[in-house]
Amino acid sequence: MKKPEFKPSEAVLSGQTADIYFARTIEILRHEGLNPVATMEVFSSRAGMLCGIEEAKALLDRVLPKDRREVWSLDEGESMNNREVVLRITAPYQSYGLYETALCGILSHCSGWATAAREVVTAARGIPVVSFGARHVHPSVAGILDYSAIAGGCVSCSSVAGAELTGVEPSGTMPHAMIIVMGDTVRATVAFDKYMPPEVPRISLVDTFKDEAEESLRVAEVLGERLESVRLDTPGERGRVTVDLVKEVRARLDLAGFKKVKIFVSGGLDPERITSFLDNGAPVDGFGVGSYISSARPIDFTADLHELDGKPIAKRGRIPGITPNPRLKRVM
Amino acid sequence: MKKPEFKPSEAVLSGQTADIYFARTIEILRHEGLNPVATMEVFSSRAGMLCGIEEAKALLDRVLPKDRREVWSLDEGESMNNREVVLRITAPYQSYGLYETALCGILSHCSGWATAAREVVTAARGIPVVSFGARHVHPSVAGILDYSAIAGGCVSCSSVAGAELTGVEPSGTMPHAMIIVMGDTVRATVAFDKYMPPEVPRISLVDTFKDEAEESLRVAEVLGERLESVRLDTPGERGRVTVDLVKEVRARLDLAGFKKVKIFVSGGLDPERITSFLDNGAPVDGFGVGSYISSARPIDFTADLHELDGKPIAKRGRIPGITPNPRLKRVM
Amino acid sequence: MKKPEFKPSEAVLSGQTADIYFARTIEILRHEGLNPVATMEVFSSRAGMLCGIEEAKALLDRVLPKDRREVWSLDEGESMNNREVVLRITAPYQSYGLYETALCGILSHCSGWATAAREVVTAARGIPVVSFGARHVHPSVAGILDYSAIAGGCVSCSSVAGAELTGVEPSGTMPHAMIIVMGDTVRATVAFDKYMPPEVPRISLVDTFKDEAEESLRVAEVLGERLESVRLDTPGERGRVTVDLVKEVRARLDLAGFKKVKIFVSGGLDPERITSFLDNGAPVDGFGVGSYISSARPIDFTADLHELDGKPIAKRGRIPGITPNPRLKRVM
Amino acid sequence: MKKPEFKPSEAVLSGQTADIYFARTIEILRHEGLNPVATMEVFSSRAGMLCGIEEAKALLDRVLPKDRREVWSLDEGESMNNREVVLRITAPYQSYGLYETALCGILSHCSGWATAAREVVTAARGIPVVSFGARHVHPSVAGILDYSAIAGGCVSCSSVAGAELTGVEPSGTMPHAMIIVMGDTVRATVAFDKYMPPEVPRISLVDTFKDEAEESLRVAEVLGERLESVRLDTPGERGRVTVDLVKEVRARLDLAGFKKVKIFVSGGLDPERITSFLDNGAPVDGFGVGSYISSARPIDFTADLHELDGKPIAKRGRIPGITPNPRLKRVM
Amino acid sequence: MKKPEFKPSEAVLSGQTADIYFARTIEILRHEGLNPVATMEVFSSRAGMLCGIEEAKALLDRVLPKDRREVWSLDEGESMNNREVVLRITAPYQSYGLYETALCGILSHCSGWATAAREVVTAARGIPVVSFGARHVHPSVAGILDYSAIAGGCVSCSSVAGAELTGVEPSGTMPHAMIIVMGDTVRATVAFDKYMPPEVPRISLVDTFKDEAEESLRVAEVLGERLESVRLDTPGERGRVTVDLVKEVRARLDLAGFKKVKIFVSGGLDPERITSFLDNGAPVDGFGVGSYISSARPIDFTADLHELDGKPIAKRGRIPGITPNPRLKRVM
Amino acid sequence: MKKPEFKPSEAVLSGQTADIYFARTIEILRHEGLNPVATMEVFSSRAGMLCGIEEAKALLDRVLPKDRREVWSLDEGESMNNREVVLRITAPYQSYGLYETALCGILSHCSGWATAAREVVTAARGIPVVSFGARHVHPSVAGILDYSAIAGGCVSCSSVAGAELTGVEPSGTMPHAMIIVMGDTVRATVAFDKYMPPEVPRISLVDTFKDEAEESLRVAEVLGERLESVRLDTPGERGRVTVDLVKEVRARLDLAGFKKVKIFVSGGLDPERITSFLDNGAPVDGFGVGSYISSARPIDFTADLHELDGKPIAKRGRIPGITPNPRLKRVM
Repeated sequence: MKKPEFKPSEAVLSGQTADIYFARTIEILRHEGLNPVATMEVFSSRAGMLCGIEEAKALLDRVLPKDRREVWSLDEGESMNNREVVLRITAPYQSYGLYETALCGILSHCSGWATAAREVVTAARGIPVVSFGARHVHPSVAGILDYSAIAGGCVSCSSVAGAELTGVEPSGTMPHAMIIVMGDTVRATVAFDKYMPPEVPRISLVDTFKDEAEESLRVAEVLGERLESVRLDTPGERGRVTVDLVKEVRARLDLAGFKKVKIFVSGGLDPERITSFLDNGAPVDGFGVGSYISSARPIDFTADLHELDGKPIAKRGRIPGITPNPRLKRVM
Repeated sequence: MKKPEFKPSEAVLSGQTADIYFARTIEILRHEGLNPVATMEVFSSRAGMLCGIEEAKALLDRVLPKDRREVWSLDEGESMNNREVVLRITAPYQSYGLYETALCGILSHCSGWATAAREVVTAARGIPVVSFGARHVHPSVAGILDYSAIAGGCVSCSSVAGAELTGVEPSGTMPHAMIIVMGDTVRATVAFDKYMPPEVPRISLVDTFKDEAEESLRVAEVLGERLESVRLDTPGERGRVTVDLVKEVRARLDLAGFKKVKIFVSGGLDPERITSFLDNGAPVDGFGVGSYISSARPIDFTADLHELDGKPIAKRGRIPGITPNPRLKRVM
Repeated sequence: MKKPEFKPSEAVLSGQTADIYFARTIEILRHEGLNPVATMEVFSSRAGMLCGIEEAKALLDRVLPKDRREVWSLDEGESMNNREVVLRITAPYQSYGLYETALCGILSHCSGWATAAREVVTAARGIPVVSFGARHVHPSVAGILDYSAIAGGCVSCSSVAGAELTGVEPSGTMPHAMIIVMGDTVRATVAFDKYMPPEVPRISLVDTFKDEAEESLRVAEVLGERLESVRLDTPGERGRVTVDLVKEVRARLDLAGFKKVKIFVSGGLDPERITSFLDNGAPVDGFGVGSYISSARPIDFTADLHELDGKPIAKRGRIPGITPNPRLKRVM
Repeated sequence: MKKPEFKPSEAVLSGQTADIYFARTIEILRHEGLNPVATMEVFSSRAGMLCGIEEAKALLDRVLPKDRREVWSLDEGESMNNREVVLRITAPYQSYGLYETALCGILSHCSGWATAAREVVTAARGIPVVSFGARHVHPSVAGILDYSAIAGGCVSCSSVAGAELTGVEPSGTMPHAMIIVMGDTVRATVAFDKYMPPEVPRISLVDTFKDEAEESLRVAEVLGERLESVRLDTPGERGRVTVDLVKEVRARLDLAGFKKVKIFVSGGLDPERITSFLDNGAPVDGFGVGSYISSARPIDFTADLHELDGKPIAKRGRIPGITPNPRLKRVM
Repeated sequence: MKKPEFKPSEAVLSGQTADIYFARTIEILRHEGLNPVATMEVFSSRAGMLCGIEEAKALLDRVLPKDRREVWSLDEGESMNNREVVLRITAPYQSYGLYETALCGILSHCSGWATAAREVVTAARGIPVVSFGARHVHPSVAGILDYSAIAGGCVSCSSVAGAELTGVEPSGTMPHAMIIVMGDTVRATVAFDKYMPPEVPRISLVDTFKDEAEESLRVAEVLGERLESVRLDTPGERGRVTVDLVKEVRARLDLAGFKKVKIFVSGGLDPERITSFLDNGAPVDGFGVGSYISSARPIDFTADLHELDGKPIAKRGRIPGITPNPRLKRVM
Repeated sequence: MKKPEFKPSEAVLSGQTADIYFARTIEILRHEGLNPVATMEVFSSRAGMLCGIEEAKALLDRVLPKDRREVWSLDEGESMNNREVVLRITAPYQSYGLYETALCGILSHCSGWATAAREVVTAARGIPVVSFGARHVHPSVAGILDYSAIAGGCVSCSSVAGAELTGVEPSGTMPHAMIIVMGDTVRATVAFDKYMPPEVPRISLVDTFKDEAEESLRVAEVLGERLESVRLDTPGERGRVTVDLVKEVRARLDLAGFKKVKIFVSGGLDPERITSFLDNGAPVDGFGVGSYISSARPIDFTADLHELDGKPIAKRGRIPGITPNPRLKRVM
């Protein structure tokens, strides 16, 4: 994906999204005239993939004084261990103390999503995975969710915002609503084929009205070579997509001569079910994953001061002084 | 809390946060001249507290034609059952088809947070709970997270944005960073007391440098009557806050004559631990809860068409026609 | 059901199905001139429903000397407790010692099946259950299996032999093979309707070629009032019959005006799944149960001598003398 | 064992043991004049040992037209995988459609027993196992049960019918009833020795009246060299046969000079208990296994049509056309 | 039981059995001239029955100055809760500081044994229980073990030392060794009957050489009315004593006219097995319990200072000042 | 450790600690004039470390006739298997029959403690372990407990009696009581340093009044080079000692220049927690273990006669004759 340009929002810069006590702290320190050069270290509460560090750096670049700062970090997408320091900031405390909430929040949410995405991508063993999670999160974060999913290895995403942020082509088939409005899967597929530009792949959703195997043959016969895939999305009320359904649709398509039509599977997928599809030989050509990624628990990050004006210090329970981590690179 | 004013963002209205296939669907339907009056029903994947419906209604109010719409829903904060219809929209399909992603996303994320908040609030049996979760989510949703937490029963929140949205006073004590910068808990508490306006409660964080019981007595002796609470936030490395620690701090404060000083507990709290505190008689006066709320899994919502121009229809696996739900109220 | 007439086969009477050591024992006892009047008690290894006692009595009636016998037993279909004596025989030992194997075997197998049948019938809470188990047992016992299933509460069975033995109408719909041979469910159903006598109910099997809901409407439209039921038998490869599928087929039939058409469910049913159908409100009108009944483990029975010529005796581990059981009735 | 001669019974040939709907199907197809050459495949629901195929072939040989049939199968006693095709029939459908119930039933019941027998035989690691299950099944299937047990690896069986079918010597010791009738184990053993032909091994059952170890020495002293084995069958009320009991009886026999007398163990044996005996070094010379074999759950078999007049077809959930299985051999 | 007289041994009084650091502490305090009146509280780590307090009081009575002491405690044999204060001492610290180890040790070991004894006695529902545990503990504590067992509700014990301490008659049958030396159970029982004074009950151990039921009848026939009980102690190698064995021995004794002979059971008994005997109706007249009592885990006790010269004090983790417990009685 | 001198007490020699039935047996045998040379074998009920055999031998040496005895055994501290014979005595039965209770009791209790000690020592991987269990057992066995713990691998013990028996230096720090009486940890440590002889290591207990890390630095600054260790014993009410606390105290001591001060950990330790400390890299220099050793279940031992005057014999369930065990050595 392309390197995105992140711009801190006004709400973040003004401290509106901060915990109130940081605003009060900065105010008190100004009154007291205290502004030591402080070293803050940020570490995660569990292992996973680091994501959000680019957005965090964009924020720090705006607020830290360019001549009195030193920032070290891991890279976007690197693996991080449990409790590993992933970001170390040395600068006058008043310049960045207000942003502890935002920095932790960006890393927490993005790393949670990216880590879940990497799990499904790993389970899929090279078969492409598309992020379908936008519908399960607040629209304010739909784009950044899909950015994180793609950082975690998804080849594409369904939201326009995520696609713009990462520069990939957005991916989608057709919603059940469209087929219901047009009254027939074949009619909807034909209309899709008629009006969409040629670079959009023709993927037909085949579980709306009739048996999936029957419908797959119907759309294949009408679209012929132009049909790129059928998408199986059988609802839970009907037992979801099974290994055997994929095999049967593949066999019936092949028997009818449509060996090039691919099969794309979605609906309640997680690493365990993807593994089960592959272990049992289901001939899947692509997976669409939604809530496993979007419902991933954020990975909590913690920020601690470890030096003040060059002297080791720490609160109870933490070791005073810089925590050595040779994997960190100086980024500012 | 006050009734918030939600305004749909430009990104949502333009379809940028939508799944791409909805944008394509609307385009195709326009080409085909198809715009039936469609009834869409939205239901949740599991039981919980409904939240986000106010924001959803604000979006629908902007996009549905005022003379051809009918919207029914449950209220913000109502309990919902597994698979219960919580929102039903009847209007020309082209006017709202594009927003299925955003509507589901708002309800998913907000209901997930509110439901988790209600769990901790219920466990706390009337003892106030403050939301401390902002640092674990992307700053774009910090405000709406705290809005949901307060809808779920929290009395306050730490983020300024959440406080503004709901009209409550933001709540916070002082960060470990402030105490480290000032070098001593008593000094930091005195400075806090000196510069903060009188309506901000004096809550001292007492686990940074010394034993919590010892530090509690030190700050109580200096601030006297003006000390509202001490906050126990013992880190995991030191065994977190225990039932016995709370009892001991209470006993030592009482022995020294500080019976009015309250004890506020935070750090890794969830319903189980809160219940354990109360079942074992720990004299806690307030709880601060962070990642249990912020890490709550979104509750997935699904939207389905059930009528077209007054006629029952449904995709396979769903029952055609309106799903009866006497709890719904007409809201538009 | 009618009271069946059991006739012991030649193989049983000749001792061919007996354990060899009984044959040897009788031979030795004859040599020694020993033929005491012995009391044998038969008890089961676990609780359940007693079945096979009619067949056992038919055998005893053939072999015991009419003037020197006394037989007590529970009735066919009665509940029996763990280790309860269900049959007590007093007669010259040489007249019946050879048949211990056959007597235990009859009771074991029949009681196992009847007990399993009663479990599914109980789970079905009054909704009729038909035994479909003949295909899972050796044809030599297909009839006696269905006899036991009907003793356990099934309303009918699929095997001709079981129906003859019990006097019920055999029950069946149509096999998948017939629909495959005729090429279309509607065509097969029409042929069935054309050639079968009017008293055979028209039950159409609707999962062979197309979506079950679609096919149900097709056969209902062609047969109209004459269609008694549709049978759902979705295979495991397609997720078996689900609660939601039954509800959906019911709703679609009702919407199309076929409120009188019943729904009959089969395929891998057991008490747990039947309970789940009913607890979740699936509108089922009949169940077909196969391997849960036919695969029921036989209930082992044990036979022991407790008196010889009126004197108490027993092997180690058993109590000498008659075991009191007021529930036994004298039957011979 | 010798190759048995199976003859289909009249009840099977007449369709009396068939499911009623097959009889109806054949009747309808005759009316319609439909009799395509159909290919039916039979597969099992779980892995195990195939048994009953000889009896199934005897039935097919009677009913299929010799010039228009082709039958492929695995051999009696071969291992089969989960869902593996074990039998494929190509012939005019009307000639064999009626026998689907019987074919599945034969394979189900026999394969269930044979698979269980193989489990105990494997657990016994070369020590002979004798089938004692006849008393737990209906006498109609006692012979075929023991046939299946021997196919599964048992060296002998207790029923005369099973012994005749397989050509092995039937095996048995003496029943508790005989000892009780004669009043003393030694007297019964002496009588047994006196009247039985020399080729019948002298196996004394030693747990009826006295301590097993004491009784073993008593019979050994009386019979001397002619005693082949003692059989331990301690009932559950006395803790069943234990590892230590076998060791102790062995030690006491050896101390008294009876090193050649073997120890045969029976009573509630299953693979787990047999393994425990051997893992703990119990010197057992033979095992008698009853209800573990006789109570084995039948392995359900399913029959499906896959071709009609040479064209691939299948019901939903199954793959149309011949299922490749290179292990099948042409048998007709 | 009679109230025992405990005398502290020289080893205890001299501090030989104390932890070394208490000896050093007393030495240092003497050098420093520190001897405050200190209040020590002793509490248990889990709930149970208090035992050993009489012995503890005997020690305190020897060492505390009679005019400057105040001692409160629960009574021997009372139930105590988890962490309940069971002993409170107020006296000059130098007079008793050395004995903290001994006081805790006495209470720990005795309360552990008594609590286990009470569990078996409760399970036995009024049927007498005899302590047979002396053989599993060091002879130095055999007497105090049996004292604790009787405090916990046992009616008697096997050790002479325990019997002397408590004033009960010691209880015992005959050891296996005696029967082996005499060569026969009947001979041993007759000799026992011949030489023992009439008040010693005749209890015959019947599992040494022959079947228990057979042996019971043999000794009953020889001793007649003088036989008080038979004792079943079947070893683990033979499956231990079972419910059914007790029932069978009872039935055979009754059949032979020995209705007054009692049955005494021992061998690996614990509350669960005793409950199982009674729930299943085994007619047991007495239980002998060994290692369940003797192997009971000591209940750890902790001693803490809570006041010095009348002022509340405590180490971290404990509440300063007297812990209120209205159940305590002043005993010194 | 030195080889201890064990002397049987008068209570043991007189039979006071014996089960009463042994006393009666000896009396009866004398009356009957029976005193065969009997071989008794003693074996344990589970695997572990043998301990107590020295004390057992001291007893046997006193009572067996020197010219008619033969004793074989394993060595003190050897591993023994489940049911392995560890002691074999051949001598006139009347000379030692009375001591079966004492012999079994010595071995049971001592082997239980030694086995538990060896488990913690093994878990500690070479880091010294000190036995602190005296306070949890009756003072009569405090010395023998610590003897067993040291036999199991502990380097020292807290009781004076155990130290005397084994010849090691007793080990101890200072009790909480001493610090409370002196009012301050530093003051108590200084007094300890002033009055104790130089060979007693200065170990300061640092969790009584203040934070452990803070207190460690305070005592280190005052004692300097003379401080050997700090002991962490954080109570359960404060979350016990954690891995991170040890690391933090180490880091803070090192930062302040006290790299030679060791860290000694105690409080509720068992093999699992010790392993967790080491697996997680906690820099512990010594462990103190109390109730895991003192609460160890005794390992029950059983004694059986196997020969009388050279002829094999045994009770039911045991094998007659000598049990071969090549590991036994002749010791008498």
